[in-house]
Amino acid sequence: MIKIVKNVTIVPMTHEVTFWGAVAFEDGKIIMVSQGNQEADRFIEELNGDVEVIDGKGGILLPGFINLHNHVSMTLLRSYADDIPLMPWLTEKIWPVEDKMTPEHIYVGAKLGIAEMLLGGTTTFVDMYASEDMVAKAGVELGMRTVLGLAFLDQSFPYFEAFAEKLIEKYGKENGLVSLTMSPHAPYTCSPETLEKAVAFAKKHNLMVHTHLSETETEIKQIRERYDKTPVEYFRDLGLFDQKTIAAHCVYLEDSDMKIMRDYGVSVSHNPQSNMKLGSGIAPVKKMMDYGINVGLGTDGPSSNNDLDMWEEMRSASFLQKVVALDPTILPAYEILKMATVNGAKALNRDDLGTIAVGQTADFMIIDTSKPHFFPCHDVIANLVYCGKASDVDTVFVNGKMVVRSKELMGDNLSNIYNQVQCAINELEIAED
Amino acid sequence: MIKIVKNVTIVPMTHEVTFWGAVAFEDGKIIMVSQGNQEADRFIEELNGDVEVIDGKGGILLPGFINLHNHVSMTLLRSYADDIPLMPWLTEKIWPVEDKMTPEHIYVGAKLGIAEMLLGGTTTFVDMYASEDMVAKAGVELGMRTVLGLAFLDQSFPYFEAFAEKLIEKYGKENGLVSLTMSPHAPYTCSPETLEKAVAFAKKHNLMVHTHLSETETEIKQIRERYDKTPVEYFRDLGLFDQKTIAAHCVYLEDSDMKIMRDYGVSVSHNPQSNMKLGSGIAPVKKMMDYGINVGLGTDGPSSNNDLDMWEEMRSASFLQKVVALDPTILPAYEILKMATVNGAKALNRDDLGTIAVGQTADFMIIDTSKPHFFPCHDVIANLVYCGKASDVDTVFVNGKMVVRSKELMGDNLSNIYNQVQCAINELEIAED
Repeated sequence: MIKIVKNVTIVPMTHEVTFWGAVAFEDGKIIMVSQGNQEADRFIEELNGDVEVIDGKGGILLPGFINLHNHVSMTLLRSYADDIPLMPWLTEKIWPVEDKMTPEHIYVGAKLGIAEMLLGGTTTFVDMYASEDMVAKAGVELGMRTVLGLAFLDQSFPYFEAFAEKLIEKYGKENGLVSLTMSPHAPYTCSPETLEKAVAFAKKHNLMVHTHLSETETEIKQIRERYDKTPVEYFRDLGLFDQKTIAAHCVYLEDSDMKIMRDYGVSVSHNPQSNMKLGSGIAPVKKMMDYGINVGLGTDGPSSNNDLDMWEEMRSASFLQKVVALDPTILPAYEILKMATVNGAKALNRDDLGTIAVGQTADFMIIDTSKPHFFPCHDVIANLVYCGKASDVDTVFVNGKMVVRSKELMGDNLSNIYNQVQCAINELEIAED
Repeated sequence: MIKIVKNVTIVPMTHEVTFWGAVAFEDGKIIMVSQGNQEADRFIEELNGDVEVIDGKGGILLPGFINLHNHVSMTLLRSYADDIPLMPWLTEKIWPVEDKMTPEHIYVGAKLGIAEMLLGGTTTFVDMYASEDMVAKAGVELGMRTVLGLAFLDQSFPYFEAFAEKLIEKYGKENGLVSLTMSPHAPYTCSPETLEKAVAFAKKHNLMVHTHLSETETEIKQIRERYDKTPVEYFRDLGLFDQKTIAAHCVYLEDSDMKIMRDYGVSVSHNPQSNMKLGSGIAPVKKMMDYGINVGLGTDGPSSNNDLDMWEEMRSASFLQKVVALDPTILPAYEILKMATVNGAKALNRDDLGTIAVGQTADFMIIDTSKPHFFPCHDVIANLVYCGKASDVDTVFVNGKMVVRSKELMGDNLSNIYNQVQCAINELEIAED
């Protein structure tokens, strides 16, 4: 049945404009975007009752967020180990627990994180972890658009191909809400031998690449010592960028790296709160954009951040670049909102996502503007970017299906998910401090 | 009547510990803090019904936030002018509207901002604006602890004394929820002649000082040119620091400035999101603390930030220092929570605020931990600081009086406030873009 959302301010993100109107959709696709009430009322009348009218309650309708970099199942380790250096964090805290994780644990961790993201207006996320089939399962159950990252390091690569073939068989290149990317973990954990085989595999199946790249100074030093290259050059020379690539972090880049990334159409997932909290460094976002590189936003995993909140990532992205440049004019509100929507869609080669227009896929959210931090509203875009909160998200549609309504998850109830997570934590015997 | 909150995890902030228990209070003062249920049940039984038991619903009870720097009435100009340089922002956008503001406008703007702060767990704020008597009125109506900043620049100083005398007569040095500070706007807007008179006035009435200090490079340059001093030296030499002082911003400090501030016991309001969004610079928070300076947190005004959210200020404070130092261990979660509570109390010379203990004033909040971003809870403090949101605040008490319950404001209803704000905006003819 055709659905129509009325009584909303629409932020189409096709260009910098907002207007009062209505959005109709059918079979997951937007079929009408109207200004004012007249056209919408005529449309409803002509359908003669064969339409579901959804009251937008005077809120703001905008495209769902696209979170370009995540390890969603790490919700299990949220606030488990903070404020310690990277290596002890990994070796003493994270890895020992991850070693014990079963696919079932990964599934329940993903459910919790996906619930959090949907409730905050994220409609698509790009993941990277083990047992990604279980992440897909969680995503499908809750109605989230999920881009799996079939991850490997040198030591796990022998198991990668068989696993990836299985998932390709199940989901094809794309199947409903699930799509696949090949995810080499990072330049410093994947040898040229591994990467050559991986690239051949990606070419054979025409897979996108999702990887960590140029995240820390240590990585730059290691790759320079091993190969006398930058991480970007290392990946380029091995042919990774021949596939469409999302590179997460990109904190340390030479100008020549940026030229390479631009020329190969590599997209970046900027993850400001992760880079800040882990003390990794400040990515040259403005400069990347000036070079013409497409930069979207990601949260990174919830155990390093410690949440999956794209609203706060938007603000951190804007504020951090402004203060580093000592220039309040850079990365203005609309550019930031594009990063969280349009640029994410571009990174995924999905020009049907990220905007509200006829023919586009119906992935969008409706914002409740009734809280004091949203009032007055002199500028809709600025209020969204500088004042909007995950808790303002009232309703979310993914692929035309309602997955959040009145701030409640539709696909499962939270206490079920919490019970499953608590069981997982008990099984994993995660040591409390 | 004695009140007791049961069924909560308590974060006392007296030292780094959390425990399950209950808090009882009477006449605005905490009279019992108990671990577990037994002592609380005995306490209730002994009172033989003469006690109001409040269900904490399994939440977290912690001291209310102390927001050390605000211009709360600027909610009227929220998202009115963003992403433009400071001087056009002030001269073309903010000042023309402020010139038209009446005390009534300042009152309704303050009501909106105070509502936002209470709903987000702030129980005390320090303000600086014109017509501060109207800010006091709004604060008293909604039950917020309000520290007024009787503001002046050179041109408004002639009116300051009479106005300040009037408020001192009304509120004394402190009266219930309202207290007063003298607020010279900034080193670059107040001449030595003005400041000498102001200091004499502050000494006569024993007033604290609340001021902007060392916020931008431009200010440093101007004060150097005019007086061949740093702003800190300029204020010190005029005797301002003989009064207890809260200095907002302190982005640009020499080592010698920090020694002066430590020796005079000057407290700092660090306002990270304002400094970032306005491109002012990065305050040397870690270094100030290493010098022994007391550093609390503030939001600055809502038109430059654009909200009054101490949760996000906490994260920005931590994350920004970590990334600048490339060190994830500095400003850990507990230190940050201290900045928002204990250090704020210290800045105000109010050792009865900022902690939960017998004898302390009953200013506290209870956090609803039921949302996915708060689950699991391996570490209460880390979850509060790195995942907590204003929207998680369920209940707030100020001076033993319930001012927020079940996320609803008690002192007024929001639609009343919105109507008043809308009228103010219409009267001010704020031009939409």
